[in-house]
Amino acid sequence: MKLIYFFEEGGKEMVNLLGGKGAGLAEMTKIGLPVPHGFTITTEACKIYISTGKLPEGLWEDVVKSMHILEERTGKKFGGKENPLLVSVRSGAPVSMPGMMDTVLNVGLNDETVLGLANLTNNERFAYDSYRRLIQMFGRIVLGINGKYFDEVMDEMKKRKGVKNDVDLDSNDLKNMVNQFKEVVIKNGYEFPQDPYKQLELSIKAVFESWNNDRAKVYRKLNNISEELGTAVTIVQMVFGNMGFDSATGVAFTRNPSTGEKDIYGEYLPNAQGEDVVAGIRTPKPIKEMEKEIPSAYRELLKSAEILEKHYRHPQDIEFTIERGKFYLLQTRNAKMNARAVVKIAVDMYHEGIISEEEMIKRVDPSHLDHLLHPQVDERAKKIEIGKGLAASPGAGIGKVVFDPDTAVELSSKGEKLILVRPETMADDVHGIAVSQAVLTSRGGMTSHAAVVARSMGKPAVVGAEEIKIDMKSRKFESNGYVVKEFDIITVDGTSGKVYLGEVPLIRPELTEELKELLEHCDKIRVLGVRANANTPEEASLAREMGAEGIGLARTERMFLGEDRLPIMVAMIMSKTKDERVENLNKLLEMQINDFVEFFRTMDGYPVIIRLLDPPLHEFLPKEENLMNEIFELKFKLRDTKDTKEIDRIISTINEKENILKTVRSLKEFNPMIGFRGCRVGIIYPEIYEMQVRAIIRAAVKVKNEGKTVIPEIMIPLVGIDAELKYLREKLFTIAEEESKNIVKFKFGTMIEVPRGALTADKIAEYADFFSFGTNDLTQMTFGFSRDDVEATFMNRYLEMNILKNNPFEILDRDGVGELMKIAVEKGRKTNPNLEIGICGEHGGEPSSIEFSHIIGLNYVSASPYRIPIARLAAAQATIKYKKNLNK
Amino acid sequence: MKLIYFFEEGGKEMVNLLGGKGAGLAEMTKIGLPVPHGFTITTEACKIYISTGKLPEGLWEDVVKSMHILEERTGKKFGGKENPLLVSVRSGAPVSMPGMMDTVLNVGLNDETVLGLANLTNNERFAYDSYRRLIQMFGRIVLGINGKYFDEVMDEMKKRKGVKNDVDLDSNDLKNMVNQFKEVVIKNGYEFPQDPYKQLELSIKAVFESWNNDRAKVYRKLNNISEELGTAVTIVQMVFGNMGFDSATGVAFTRNPSTGEKDIYGEYLPNAQGEDVVAGIRTPKPIKEMEKEIPSAYRELLKSAEILEKHYRHPQDIEFTIERGKFYLLQTRNAKMNARAVVKIAVDMYHEGIISEEEMIKRVDPSHLDHLLHPQVDERAKKIEIGKGLAASPGAGIGKVVFDPDTAVELSSKGEKLILVRPETMADDVHGIAVSQAVLTSRGGMTSHAAVVARSMGKPAVVGAEEIKIDMKSRKFESNGYVVKEFDIITVDGTSGKVYLGEVPLIRPELTEELKELLEHCDKIRVLGVRANANTPEEASLAREMGAEGIGLARTERMFLGEDRLPIMVAMIMSKTKDERVENLNKLLEMQINDFVEFFRTMDGYPVIIRLLDPPLHEFLPKEENLMNEIFELKFKLRDTKDTKEIDRIISTINEKENILKTVRSLKEFNPMIGFRGCRVGIIYPEIYEMQVRAIIRAAVKVKNEGKTVIPEIMIPLVGIDAELKYLREKLFTIAEEESKNIVKFKFGTMIEVPRGALTADKIAEYADFFSFGTNDLTQMTFGFSRDDVEATFMNRYLEMNILKNNPFEILDRDGVGELMKIAVEKGRKTNPNLEIGICGEHGGEPSSIEFSHIIGLNYVSASPYRIPIARLAAAQATIKYKKNLNK
Repeated sequence: MKLIYFFEEGGKEMVNLLGGKGAGLAEMTKIGLPVPHGFTITTEACKIYISTGKLPEGLWEDVVKSMHILEERTGKKFGGKENPLLVSVRSGAPVSMPGMMDTVLNVGLNDETVLGLANLTNNERFAYDSYRRLIQMFGRIVLGINGKYFDEVMDEMKKRKGVKNDVDLDSNDLKNMVNQFKEVVIKNGYEFPQDPYKQLELSIKAVFESWNNDRAKVYRKLNNISEELGTAVTIVQMVFGNMGFDSATGVAFTRNPSTGEKDIYGEYLPNAQGEDVVAGIRTPKPIKEMEKEIPSAYRELLKSAEILEKHYRHPQDIEFTIERGKFYLLQTRNAKMNARAVVKIAVDMYHEGIISEEEMIKRVDPSHLDHLLHPQVDERAKKIEIGKGLAASPGAGIGKVVFDPDTAVELSSKGEKLILVRPETMADDVHGIAVSQAVLTSRGGMTSHAAVVARSMGKPAVVGAEEIKIDMKSRKFESNGYVVKEFDIITVDGTSGKVYLGEVPLIRPELTEELKELLEHCDKIRVLGVRANANTPEEASLAREMGAEGIGLARTERMFLGEDRLPIMVAMIMSKTKDERVENLNKLLEMQINDFVEFFRTMDGYPVIIRLLDPPLHEFLPKEENLMNEIFELKFKLRDTKDTKEIDRIISTINEKENILKTVRSLKEFNPMIGFRGCRVGIIYPEIYEMQVRAIIRAAVKVKNEGKTVIPEIMIPLVGIDAELKYLREKLFTIAEEESKNIVKFKFGTMIEVPRGALTADKIAEYADFFSFGTNDLTQMTFGFSRDDVEATFMNRYLEMNILKNNPFEILDRDGVGELMKIAVEKGRKTNPNLEIGICGEHGGEPSSIEFSHIIGLNYVSASPYRIPIARLAAAQATIKYKKNLNK
Repeated sequence: MKLIYFFEEGGKEMVNLLGGKGAGLAEMTKIGLPVPHGFTITTEACKIYISTGKLPEGLWEDVVKSMHILEERTGKKFGGKENPLLVSVRSGAPVSMPGMMDTVLNVGLNDETVLGLANLTNNERFAYDSYRRLIQMFGRIVLGINGKYFDEVMDEMKKRKGVKNDVDLDSNDLKNMVNQFKEVVIKNGYEFPQDPYKQLELSIKAVFESWNNDRAKVYRKLNNISEELGTAVTIVQMVFGNMGFDSATGVAFTRNPSTGEKDIYGEYLPNAQGEDVVAGIRTPKPIKEMEKEIPSAYRELLKSAEILEKHYRHPQDIEFTIERGKFYLLQTRNAKMNARAVVKIAVDMYHEGIISEEEMIKRVDPSHLDHLLHPQVDERAKKIEIGKGLAASPGAGIGKVVFDPDTAVELSSKGEKLILVRPETMADDVHGIAVSQAVLTSRGGMTSHAAVVARSMGKPAVVGAEEIKIDMKSRKFESNGYVVKEFDIITVDGTSGKVYLGEVPLIRPELTEELKELLEHCDKIRVLGVRANANTPEEASLAREMGAEGIGLARTERMFLGEDRLPIMVAMIMSKTKDERVENLNKLLEMQINDFVEFFRTMDGYPVIIRLLDPPLHEFLPKEENLMNEIFELKFKLRDTKDTKEIDRIISTINEKENILKTVRSLKEFNPMIGFRGCRVGIIYPEIYEMQVRAIIRAAVKVKNEGKTVIPEIMIPLVGIDAELKYLREKLFTIAEEESKNIVKFKFGTMIEVPRGALTADKIAEYADFFSFGTNDLTQMTFGFSRDDVEATFMNRYLEMNILKNNPFEILDRDGVGELMKIAVEKGRKTNPNLEIGICGEHGGEPSSIEFSHIIGLNYVSASPYRIPIARLAAAQATIKYKKNLNK
């Protein structure tokens, strides 16, 4: 078995045998880049050493032979007095385990070779510093001596000399220290070996053994890395950037990691070693200056950068050293870049012919786009942080604090920018959220009402900021000692979860040219359609800008709210007879027609799925507690009132409120989430849906008559029984046909959000032109998790304990919820092969869930407007990942 | 095509061609019973008549020929003056449509034959009464004359004679009436045909046409009967029971329909016609007297009864007429019997060799047993009904009214019998229900807490009795004007849903010898095991009596309640640290060990599945509203208190209550049903389950050491994620092993009650020895129906509208919930082929659900003790119904 590979014999594909470092150096050598000479002892040798406690037979002889070859290649001699060869002995596992295993530098120095090094570098201090480092490192790592003994010597020395840093020690001090370090070794029962080959042998063994040190074991366990891999040992010729001003050391990115510009970016230090950069005593120079100062090495750097990019097809982050004008690459790895740069570079590299179209698309992580698409707090700006909560909806918002939605609506109509601050939000806060720049709540989790609504509206939100104590009575909040009154300005950063006092400068998002181009490529490739969840014409318009091909979910709840509508809605709910109810609904009819007209105009030419009323009726009524308080206060007032007219007025108000209270109580449910809502309300009070369908089709006819293309699709929520849909379809179809007079075509479909709906999809599909998975509710019912409660109770512990890998409200649960979706797709299409199936839960904008939607063959995903680009990208990536035999 | 069949040519298998009546008479004729002569015109003839409007070609000629044969057989002549043959012309469809179509009697009477009939019967009055009936019936049915014209004549006649009933009219009156009826016919543009064949022809056509009368059409639509069937026409010789004292008419059951005794049971009237019995002027005689009075006919009756029973293999309900000593059977049908008789007769007939073992088992409807097994209100007793609600749990209970569980417990300990009356019940009422005779609530539905708990305990319950207005303050309720104070006695009938004032006599249930025998046969045949849901040693003991083969669900909630335990439980919940929590749990440990010891002793030799704590913690705490009221009252009291010691005491109580209130509020959930309960609590606070497992195994070891056989099976509720079960199994197994010291073997399993649990059953089965379907919760989550809310909102309307065929909380929903169960069984057994699977939801005691459990291959069902016999029967019936090639 071959146990040693010189760099030119290996390559990146041999990572299991040579470890990451060995394979990387081999790869660079293979493609002709200037890398110091060296060779790698394989992981197989390590495995044998670990199981037998001895080096494999013949290995040591091979190492000695290899060292001789190294001497030939470098023209230096290992243990030579004149031009000594020094090497580093480096660990390197097949999987990156940064800092977990050991490395010994400067092997080959001893009392004699140190003199040669001093001569050669003309730097006695450097030579002895290198020597004391070797003794120290060898002592700790190879001999297992407690590092504190060496530190004590160092501290004593600095104290005696009255200096703070070891760089302030001179060569005599260091000579002295070498002697003292040797004594430390002796005191611990060893002797520092003067024989370089002894140093080498022991170092190799020590590196092998470091595979099994405690921190490496823990790391492997945490990261699920096999115990069987073992580490390779790479022996590399030491090169020195501190051999004069034709020497240097530096780091460089092959492209600008912040802007993505194709321009080498980095810094270097002339006549210095890597550790000098780390020590930070000297300020490095911009890499461009190297062009003048060491032009040949600079040219070598540029050439290497180009070769590396072409070879790795990715911008690189490289480390180099120049020893006496000779350029050496010491390391290269894929560069980490910010979101904007990632996108630009992917597109540029595609144009440069370095990567294919598919690779360009795969290169961008969808989460990058999330960062790009929301206004961001300028990290560099000075700011006063007053609190922190959960980063529920990305982006930043600035405005005046208001504590209730009505004030928000009132001020917003005057052009004010506002932040809605609430303990938590409910359905009747939605009109307030709609006009605010951002939302801040002191309660609730990542999937609380505020978080969900804000995300769906693309509004920044920080929720569950528990330090914030809201005092609704005196209209202020207090947080960490700061008091913020109503109308004070704050900045809410939904990306970081932080809240700042006053106005913090923001960086505005933009769909860059490169991003637009990238997404156009995605559109060409992807199989999944991308629609938007949008509830207003404004949101619909934004959705189109972001590239939506239709509306996958337009909620109609909002149309029952608003100052002019809520009282009618309340009267409708309180109606004693059907006639009374119909009368109130008729008042809402005209208003809703106008809502839909605007919507259809905006979505000219695109399909629009409109979901009929979904929430429970009690959400439109005042809260029980508030009503009770109001009644109490009115009764109190009554005692102090003398005026009979006033008394009559108060009594009548009390009666009215008590009436509402009675209705509120009669609608109260133990578990409203799985209660009287959705199509259940639509079936018991069919006149509500009848009015909505009338409004939708009338509006559609009107817009059609304006010359536009209208494609309305009516969607019924919460269907779990085929007979529910059958009943409603028959009833509503008649009305839709009556109103459309054949002018407008429409479709009729259902949400699949109740487990039973999925399980009986074959029957339900008999009455549906389309399905749309409501994965928010489907997740609640499939897990039996109340979304409003889990965050406050067990969800976080479940994630910490790894009982759940992900929050299923964020990333679709493929095993459970996904299984139901698969069943529904299969059964639904069996009955109705033309069934159009999409997903409109929040998962529709989450990459892993989009991938799953592609796998199970959905027709489209629907996401909130700001997540449309993410969906386009994720859909294209899923297509690429799962395409079968596309080239055959 | 043959269109006419004499009775001896047909049989019961020809029901489609001959109709029910024709086939029945043919069948009796075929087996040699004395049936009047006659023949049937087929439904095919009817179809032709209806489509063409004409009798099929040749039919009339065949009818005339058949009438001649009838004349020969009877020795009478159709239209003959001396011994006239009269016939009835009867409708009869293949499917029973009682009273929907027409029949004409006495066809063949005219001005001449009436004289012959009068002579023959020596009863002029009877002859003319028969004649006027013919004219009236013929007029109405055949000629379509409005019946009121005939009624007017009759009324006028009675008025003139000053009598109330038509039987008080004499023969002259009836002669007179015949003439007036003829005039009515003439006034309506017809003439009553004197030609008997004309009468016959028109009657046949009229019966055919009656297939399409309005009420028949509506009936068919409502009952989903095909329009295509048509009716047959059966022509039967009229026989008369009023031809003297050797004639009679009567009805008889072949066995006693109330006791099941094998003894003919019925009554007869000598010298009378069927309609005389209906008119009720003469009191019929017990059938036994016929033995002396008309002995030959009586022997004929007994012989016929035996032949009929053997032939139909079912007790019969027969109608007969004796004409001049000759016995005629006119009709026979399967007799309707009460529950007790059904069971006895099934077993007796098996012993008599009339039916097979399987038929005996199939013969008893499981719902019969439900009636047999609960104390019943004596229907015949006088009683004052004061209200009515839903019949939530069968049986009747008598006792003193109490309004809270603590009073119930206190009084019950003094030997009092009580009825717990509450607006609705909660978990902390359970100890009160346990000691009461019955429960009565003014709110809630068939699946409310009170209903479910009562059924599980076999306690009678009436729930949702809305007329009952409970005044908790003055400790009384008012209902329909009756005021019932605490400690007044009432009777609650959970079978009918009625509530009575005072003590109403009850009939006690018993497992009769026949029932025991029947169930033993069931046990031999059935494949499904039958276990019990039982929470106390008393219930467990009852369950064994009822034939349970183990406990399928022992809930442990009750063990945390009770005067001595609840305060510790509250302290446990309020604990700030784990240590504090463990300390409180340790106090409960000893108590729970004792609970389990009793339980295991009772179930010696049988497996016992114990479910660890399931409900949310807040159910053990006082209600928010109550706490707020208590605190308010204490504060009020504080104002009036001078004594400083007393003040300190009150303040400390207020603080304590406010502390609890805080906890109550922190545990409050929007949707507790899908919130923090079940194994979720067990995972966050593992010390609770640890204590329970310790108690179970310690108790098991103790009972084992007493020489008994203990088979504990530990069950985790609400598992939806395999990692939940994995975590708990690992933790709890260690404890169980530690405690068992290999003395007791135990199993470890899980409820499958969350949809995701079913969908991922393959993974969950890796950590489970058994599954138990909790179909109550599984139904809630699969439908997204909150059981506590649906009854009050949309469930009833859904059932009325036929959107749901059944309430899925009563009868298992096979399409949705059942589909999930199938998936779970299949996936679970794939991973763990030895997985034991049962059902412990309430469906486990419901026959259709038991059948489904058999179909999908469960190992057992678990039902509340009083439903065990039902489960044994239903399981055997399912085995019979679905057995495959058992005899091959």
